[in-house]
Order: sequence, then structure tokens, then C-alpha cells
Amino acid sequence: MVILGIDPGLANTGWGVVETRGSLVRARAYGCISSSADEPIDMRLGRIFRELSQIILKYGPTDLAIEKIFFGQNAKSAIPTAQARGAAIAACAAAGLVVGEYTPMQIKQSLVGTGSASKEQVTFMVRHVLALDHDPKPDHAADALASAVCHAHLSQTASATQLHSVLEG
Amino acid sequence: MVILGIDPGLANTGWGVVETRGSLVRARAYGCISSSADEPIDMRLGRIFRELSQIILKYGPTDLAIEKIFFGQNAKSAIPTAQARGAAIAACAAAGLVVGEYTPMQIKQSLVGTGSASKEQVTFMVRHVLALDHDPKPDHAADALASAVCHAHLSQTASATQLHSVLEG
Repeated sequence: MVILGIDPGLANTGWGVVETRGSLVRARAYGCISSSADEPIDMRLGRIFRELSQIILKYGPTDLAIEKIFFGQNAKSAIPTAQARGAAIAACAAAGLVVGEYTPMQIKQSLVGTGSASKEQVTFMVRHVLALDHDPKPDHAADALASAVCHAHLSQTASATQLHSVLEG
Repeated sequence: MVILGIDPGLANTGWGVVETRGSLVRARAYGCISSSADEPIDMRLGRIFRELSQIILKYGPTDLAIEKIFFGQNAKSAIPTAQARGAAIAACAAAGLVVGEYTPMQIKQSLVGTGSASKEQVTFMVRHVLALDHDPKPDHAADALASAVCHAHLSQTASATQLHSVLEG
């Protein structure tokens, strides 16, 4: 299973592609799509859409993992993120990916075992689970990989539960 | 010049295509792309992206006209609109459209002559300018047409000013 994780942002959209084989999860590639505030909005959103479409074409993920957006934050910071998220999900939907949305708490819980884990603990576990010999950088890419690993873990749990039901049934 | 106007929303994205010939502006088509809250986010944003891409392919607009999004509103209502806006602009950017963003005040000013015009006055003027024999419905489509007419007016003014400069120069 190949999973694309995305951490959307208008200035920086992190992405990470992971592949599962049994219980192993390994990183295929990761990076960040950046733009600056002096570029017109269509250029910025167009770049997110186009680069993600190319990444999907190159690595062939079947699933997208992305953080849920929540309404508690202020509109000034939420609106640019939400626009980037719209362009990113449009790219994935156009390519037929299945979308898994997770709260920050679910992602931390899945990686570290507690929903109150620190950023450093999450990055440490991303590096450990993916057997990387370095911390994934920038932070947006690390967050994208964390979403993808969370999706991999929860999909494995779901498959194991189904298999267990079949064997028990 | 063929202009696509969009009034983005996650539940309802209004669209309208207008064509200019000299100072005439006429509607080619308009409508609304709808989804319901029980559909997954990728299905909703994917539909906006896909249907707008088909509309662009069918009518061949060169320009997109869309309302500016502002940060004063609360995040709960702004986030779904911003996500829809991201998917809509991504579709237009992918097709190479030039994007014109206008404040609600600019749109009212351009159509009615005052930035404090009522919704009814704007709809009346959209119908009048486009020589429609009925009010364009739903409201989202009327708002999309209003953005497109505003873009047509301001483009004509810009062209006239340029021509004037050339003749004077």
C-alpha cells in the first residue's frame, strides 16, 4: 500500500510518500511545496495542485492521509490553510485517491501512544518507524509523513481486525 | 473575451460564464455545483474541481473573476468556503486562466455605481446588463455572474485607458 501524507499550507505544503509491506512502513520520498506571499493566489494554489498531481503520478499512492481542519482557530490563519487544503484534496480527488482524515490527537496517539505527545516525540517516532538515519526536514514534511504513518497503522489495525473476524467467524 | 465568474462554497459553488463583444456583455451559461454535508470532503471538493474543469473545457474562458475572501468572518463559516475556493482556483489555474479578485464593494460599485448597493439591486443590474428575461437563479449563480460582469467592466475600462494613452501618446 502506498500512502501520500499531506500537511497543507499556502506558504508551505509538506508531503510524504510511504509504502507498507506487512507491518513495515518505509518512506519513498518527502518534501515541501513553497510559495511566497507576493505571488498571486492562482499561482500559489496552482503550484500546490500541479506538484501534488506530479507526485501522485510518480509514486502512485492509493490513499491520502491528511489532518482534519478544526474551526477553533482564528480565520486569519485558517483561511490560507483551508485554501491550500482545498487545492491539495482536489488534486488527490482528481486522481481517485481515498482520503483519510485524522485529528492531531489521533496522529500523536497512533505514533507515540499518547495524544499529548510533543512535536519532538512525534518526529522521533516518525524517524524510528520509517528507519530513517536522519530527522525528516522541514517540519511540514515530517508532519506529512506522520499523517501517512498514522494512516498505515490504522489501516493495518483495520485489516487485522477484519482478518481476525474472518478467522473467528 | 470569455469570463468565468465563481461564487465558491462547499455546499453550493455558483458559476457563470459571460462573453464580451465591444461594450456588450452577454451570459453564455450559469449554474451551481452542490453537495451535501454527509458526503466525504474529497467527493465534495473533487466535484467542484471536476465540474469547473468541464465548464472551462466547454466554454473556453480566459479569465476567472472571484470575490476576495476576507479574514473578518468567523473560522467556522470561512473554512468550508476557503476549501471550496482552493479547489475552484486550482481548477482555473490548472487550465491557465488569469485570475481577477474583487471585493464585494468593488463588485457592487461596478454594477450599481455604489459599494453599499443591496443584493436586489445587484441582481437587478446583472439581469439588466446581461439582457436576461428573468432573474438568474440560484443566488450563488447570480453572485458568480456579478463577479464576471465586474471583471468585464473593469477590463473594458483598463483597455479604454490603455487605448486612450496610446492615442494621446
